Amino acid sequence: MLIRVINPNTSAPMTAAIGAAAARVAAPGTRIDCVSPAMGPASIEGHYDEAIATVGLLEEIRAGELLGAAGHVVACFGDPGLDAAREIARAPVIGVAEAAMHLATLVATGFSVVTTLERTCIITEHLVHNYGFTRQCRAIRACEIAVLELEHPGSGAYERIEDECRRALREDRSGAIVLGCAGMAELRDRLQAALGVPVVEGVTAAVKLLEGLAALGLATSRHGDYAAPLAKPYAGLMARFAPGGSS
Amino acid sequence: MLIRVINPNTSAPMTAAIGAAAARVAAPGTRIDCVSPAMGPASIEGHYDEAIATVGLLEEIRAGELLGAAGHVVACFGDPGLDAAREIARAPVIGVAEAAMHLATLVATGFSVVTTLERTCIITEHLVHNYGFTRQCRAIRACEIAVLELEHPGSGAYERIEDECRRALREDRSGAIVLGCAGMAELRDRLQAALGVPVVEGVTAAVKLLEGLAALGLATSRHGDYAAPLAKPYAGLMARFAPGGSS
Amino acid sequence: MLIRVINPNTSAPMTAAIGAAAARVAAPGTRIDCVSPAMGPASIEGHYDEAIATVGLLEEIRAGELLGAAGHVVACFGDPGLDAAREIARAPVIGVAEAAMHLATLVATGFSVVTTLERTCIITEHLVHNYGFTRQCRAIRACEIAVLELEHPGSGAYERIEDECRRALREDRSGAIVLGCAGMAELRDRLQAALGVPVVEGVTAAVKLLEGLAALGLATSRHGDYAAPLAKPYAGLMARFAPGGSS
Amino acid sequence: MLIRVINPNTSAPMTAAIGAAAARVAAPGTRIDCVSPAMGPASIEGHYDEAIATVGLLEEIRAGELLGAAGHVVACFGDPGLDAAREIARAPVIGVAEAAMHLATLVATGFSVVTTLERTCIITEHLVHNYGFTRQCRAIRACEIAVLELEHPGSGAYERIEDECRRALREDRSGAIVLGCAGMAELRDRLQAALGVPVVEGVTAAVKLLEGLAALGLATSRHGDYAAPLAKPYAGLMARFAPGGSS
Amino acid sequence: MLIRVINPNTSAPMTAAIGAAAARVAAPGTRIDCVSPAMGPASIEGHYDEAIATVGLLEEIRAGELLGAAGHVVACFGDPGLDAAREIARAPVIGVAEAAMHLATLVATGFSVVTTLERTCIITEHLVHNYGFTRQCRAIRACEIAVLELEHPGSGAYERIEDECRRALREDRSGAIVLGCAGMAELRDRLQAALGVPVVEGVTAAVKLLEGLAALGLATSRHGDYAAPLAKPYAGLMARFAPGGSS
Amino acid sequence: MLIRVINPNTSAPMTAAIGAAAARVAAPGTRIDCVSPAMGPASIEGHYDEAIATVGLLEEIRAGELLGAAGHVVACFGDPGLDAAREIARAPVIGVAEAAMHLATLVATGFSVVTTLERTCIITEHLVHNYGFTRQCRAIRACEIAVLELEHPGSGAYERIEDECRRALREDRSGAIVLGCAGMAELRDRLQAALGVPVVEGVTAAVKLLEGLAALGLATSRHGDYAAPLAKPYAGLMARFAPGGSS
Repeated sequence: MLIRVINPNTSAPMTAAIGAAAARVAAPGTRIDCVSPAMGPASIEGHYDEAIATVGLLEEIRAGELLGAAGHVVACFGDPGLDAAREIARAPVIGVAEAAMHLATLVATGFSVVTTLERTCIITEHLVHNYGFTRQCRAIRACEIAVLELEHPGSGAYERIEDECRRALREDRSGAIVLGCAGMAELRDRLQAALGVPVVEGVTAAVKLLEGLAALGLATSRHGDYAAPLAKPYAGLMARFAPGGSS
Repeated sequence: MLIRVINPNTSAPMTAAIGAAAARVAAPGTRIDCVSPAMGPASIEGHYDEAIATVGLLEEIRAGELLGAAGHVVACFGDPGLDAAREIARAPVIGVAEAAMHLATLVATGFSVVTTLERTCIITEHLVHNYGFTRQCRAIRACEIAVLELEHPGSGAYERIEDECRRALREDRSGAIVLGCAGMAELRDRLQAALGVPVVEGVTAAVKLLEGLAALGLATSRHGDYAAPLAKPYAGLMARFAPGGSS
Repeated sequence: MLIRVINPNTSAPMTAAIGAAAARVAAPGTRIDCVSPAMGPASIEGHYDEAIATVGLLEEIRAGELLGAAGHVVACFGDPGLDAAREIARAPVIGVAEAAMHLATLVATGFSVVTTLERTCIITEHLVHNYGFTRQCRAIRACEIAVLELEHPGSGAYERIEDECRRALREDRSGAIVLGCAGMAELRDRLQAALGVPVVEGVTAAVKLLEGLAALGLATSRHGDYAAPLAKPYAGLMARFAPGGSS
Repeated sequence: MLIRVINPNTSAPMTAAIGAAAARVAAPGTRIDCVSPAMGPASIEGHYDEAIATVGLLEEIRAGELLGAAGHVVACFGDPGLDAAREIARAPVIGVAEAAMHLATLVATGFSVVTTLERTCIITEHLVHNYGFTRQCRAIRACEIAVLELEHPGSGAYERIEDECRRALREDRSGAIVLGCAGMAELRDRLQAALGVPVVEGVTAAVKLLEGLAALGLATSRHGDYAAPLAKPYAGLMARFAPGGSS
Repeated sequence: MLIRVINPNTSAPMTAAIGAAAARVAAPGTRIDCVSPAMGPASIEGHYDEAIATVGLLEEIRAGELLGAAGHVVACFGDPGLDAAREIARAPVIGVAEAAMHLATLVATGFSVVTTLERTCIITEHLVHNYGFTRQCRAIRACEIAVLELEHPGSGAYERIEDECRRALREDRSGAIVLGCAGMAELRDRLQAALGVPVVEGVTAAVKLLEGLAALGLATSRHGDYAAPLAKPYAGLMARFAPGGSS
Repeated sequence: MLIRVINPNTSAPMTAAIGAAAARVAAPGTRIDCVSPAMGPASIEGHYDEAIATVGLLEEIRAGELLGAAGHVVACFGDPGLDAAREIARAPVIGVAEAAMHLATLVATGFSVVTTLERTCIITEHLVHNYGFTRQCRAIRACEIAVLELEHPGSGAYERIEDECRRALREDRSGAIVLGCAGMAELRDRLQAALGVPVVEGVTAAVKLLEGLAALGLATSRHGDYAAPLAKPYAGLMARFAPGGSS
């Protein structure tokens, strides 16, 4: 079974790290293919980055469908393009923010999100509101770390994240931590060992959710809100993205 | 890996059916042990049934812990005793309503719950409100079937459930169905085939979620709200349920 | 008119204190009978304690019904078993958290709950959410006092509670205090005199609400959600709790 | 103990009827004084009627304070002027909508409001939202009866109200009825007998709540939001309503 | 086109200042007429002041209608009498709190309200809840400045307001400031220049919204909730306010 | 003053019609420039269409900024790319759904959205939830008209829309209609004349809101959530969209 993990930014080291984290938790029969688009931003740290990154992400969703993927992971904590991806994929699609938040509510009554830049908190806040976890998400905290800093060993990123997590546990009445960036996937085990509470990371969470959906025979509903896009022409640079109407 | 599925009512045929459904979706390394308590109601169809059934359920949680279970399923759609179970179990505990609703939100923007008796709808409504799925749960519909009728081939139960599901898809703007009783686990495949939309069933959903949590190294947080019960004496008939304080 | 006040823990001194507080506010024609179950936990400080205590509580509800009680008070601030109790009682049943919160909203736009252990705050938070008082309840504050400490004169419990109340009035923009434990019933008058704001205590509040309902001819609706439990067998240790179907 | 029931419209027959209903439920030591203002609308059927009626209502609150009232009832289902009244009264003030809704939630998980004109439903909807009963109030239904028609025996008002209540019980999944007009106080007993579910009426509910608050030593908090109005001049026709600053 | 700006308090200097601010933003074809009622409180700093001020406000709404006003501004941040005014005016009516909050959500994801006295915060909180801006309004902050102090150059009011705004920007994660008193209209430009974020002021916002509604041919709906008051007698001092039934 | 109205689909007749509607309501000093992107879908009828259309939309936002636009309208009822557009524009940006809903709440307590295809209702529902208008938006209704059908005189589109509006007024307790597609801009006047209630259309509403913001000196906050995108490389087809970091 193929699960495609799509890092919607174009950072190759981050894609490699995300893929490694995904592979470590995959079941024996699961093949993880972690990719990043040929186009788009080097990192996603705001609404504009998200909007532009979505095109490349959707191209990768289509590519994965052609490869017969059994599931797709949108590996950026803003879950960009998730609804659009669901319209064009027969296989289920899961965002890493969504995955992490759902699992966090199964192991704690409340969680804190610890993320990178304060400017991205609004995106998480919006997701929390839409997923219905307003009560369960007790705080969204930024460490003021740029996304690509996470890849630099000397950046002190781990220490700042651990510090913020400890503050969250002291101040937010939370029982679990949700890591607010796909780039933090590699830090999860170390953080959980250090903190002694569940640390939920979205890439790995999404892989297990997709394996579960596959075993249960569940895929995105084609009835209603996620019906396939209607066939129509797209102009100019976007012509190649036009839906065929039969996907 | 042992997953204990606890049917909190004492109906042996239903326990067998639930266990069979759980086993069909379990991963190769998972052993399903489906049990029902030695004490409690023959079926759970209201708050009082739930309250009394919880004692036997909790006894089975403790028994499962002694057996080294890697996870526990509360296999009644009201998720009775879930918070209490989480306080006494090191392994994660998942309710079937919670499991089904979480997965339904991953494959559709809205779902309808189709359940047994109208008198139990208030319990589901309460769960929806607490889990945060007020927007995603577009309707809760009863078929006026008693829980134990589900086991009787001649009861016409399947047909009435399928009819109600069809009404839900026509009237509720839902893209998926959530089956509102653990006793419906065996009907899922047939219903999904008939309806052409995702039909999410909680027992099977909970098994896959527990397998996922185990692979991710996630268990109930002991920090805060789900801390183990404080050691103290329990009197009378309940003396044997007193927490040791070290669980 | 008989009002049964049920302390669902088995602490005799607390039962006596609760009964005395209830009696002090009862109307001339009201007889207060304050009891605690023959079975269950010595104190209720978490979900597990609550779940087990509910059995004995429900037994006392039934006993009270046989005695012709005109109302029942569930005298533990988590309002355990309230919905179940309403299914089996013809007389109205009121929880002390519910009673205190309702009355607090009649005398202030916002209130703070001051309770015992932080680990119980989640129970109060859940009740607030379900009763609809999310806006009115501006904070839930714990004093880290064990429930049974409240009975010990030398424990400094009163002083710590008063301190926390003062912090609440300074920091929460609240106009009233709700005492978050039935064991605090005796402290209300002293606290209100010291603080100069309404201090609402649930046992006494529930007694007056039940007297009011009785005078108005109002009792729990048997139509729909609180219909009597269906008659069915209960197995094992719980056999004696089986509903007759005619209660 | 004096409880002042203020019918904020100027209809004398309605005032008499309200007073009679209040007196029937009052405790032995309670004296009911039911009044209507010397100024204002003959009936209250919209926001404008409410706004103008509030002046006369507040004058009666002040008059009641001078008479040493132990409590005030605002006997119009829109609860007009309630917050303002609480600023100027030392005794507690309760609105009949608020009273009825609070008690209804103690005897049923959901209620329907049955009121007079459709044009007033928005006022009730607003109150429901502010009191926090969005989930508990399952419907607001109008009978298209003018308020003063309620006083006319030949108007068929009772029959239309009973019909609407029956529709509510069939269609709204409600367990109780809240009567949405103080002018319906006299109909409660007959309706409850006919319908077999709790019918909650606000005037009588408010009287019992005020008796309860008095017994508990609870009155409106002067801390914060309901502090007494600041002393200042009022001009023109309103000069006589200027707060002295010491009330 | 005539826009009537009604300062519902009777302070002439504040009326003049409000009128000047309104005039500065009005379009060429707009004539601003800023008035205050002949009756009512010198300033509005609580629910009681609001309730009494509403009568004079409504009289001015009627006067404006006779003058053919194309729009009415309720120039007090509690938006007193807004619903009643809409029932009696053919031209649209906008409150300054409503105007400022709506525009603030168009230029920032979150805003803080900075207002005068803490005792008025509850009024703003209520408006936020009713307008639907619970998420967007991140804080309501008082400077403890009396409304009429705003007119006194030596009061230090400006400095205290600027300080509070700076605290809001540091602590509330807000991107814009909403000024919480019509008396602050003159301070907006200076504050915005000092703070470097949008500072939204309601009087000026309401004028532009009314100009917009007029250009769009939009006025208050007469269908349903804002239908004209029914004709009926009003007694005593309020007789002259009786609706004719044809407004 | 230049207001750029961006129709994010590539239908030239619709762009012309939208531009004409915008021009009809513009103030004398306002120049309307209505454009559609050189790339993207012919119509927007789902999440995927929206996601791809956003790139061309953002390109037009940038183009408008270079032209010194004083405001930008996103003229598609799903408000696609709105947050991203705000990050890259100094001038304010308003979506037509947002504009119409805000104004509708100023003229009615409740509104119904009447839109094209049922499959787009979920997008509107999401917007309503995020803008805070859950209570005010009483229904979202589809006419099952494709977006481009709106341009065809013989399609019967107008009649079907008017019919649906009439149903909304009868069944939803709404006082106003919000037109759920920018392509309906031309129908507004005729519909309002026929229905006798406010019909709010987003393109025209957005133009007036932008004129208002400009007169008030208000533009998108650069503090916090809408800070300009960080400078970084974008790869491949998206390279030309990379933010310079100084916009």
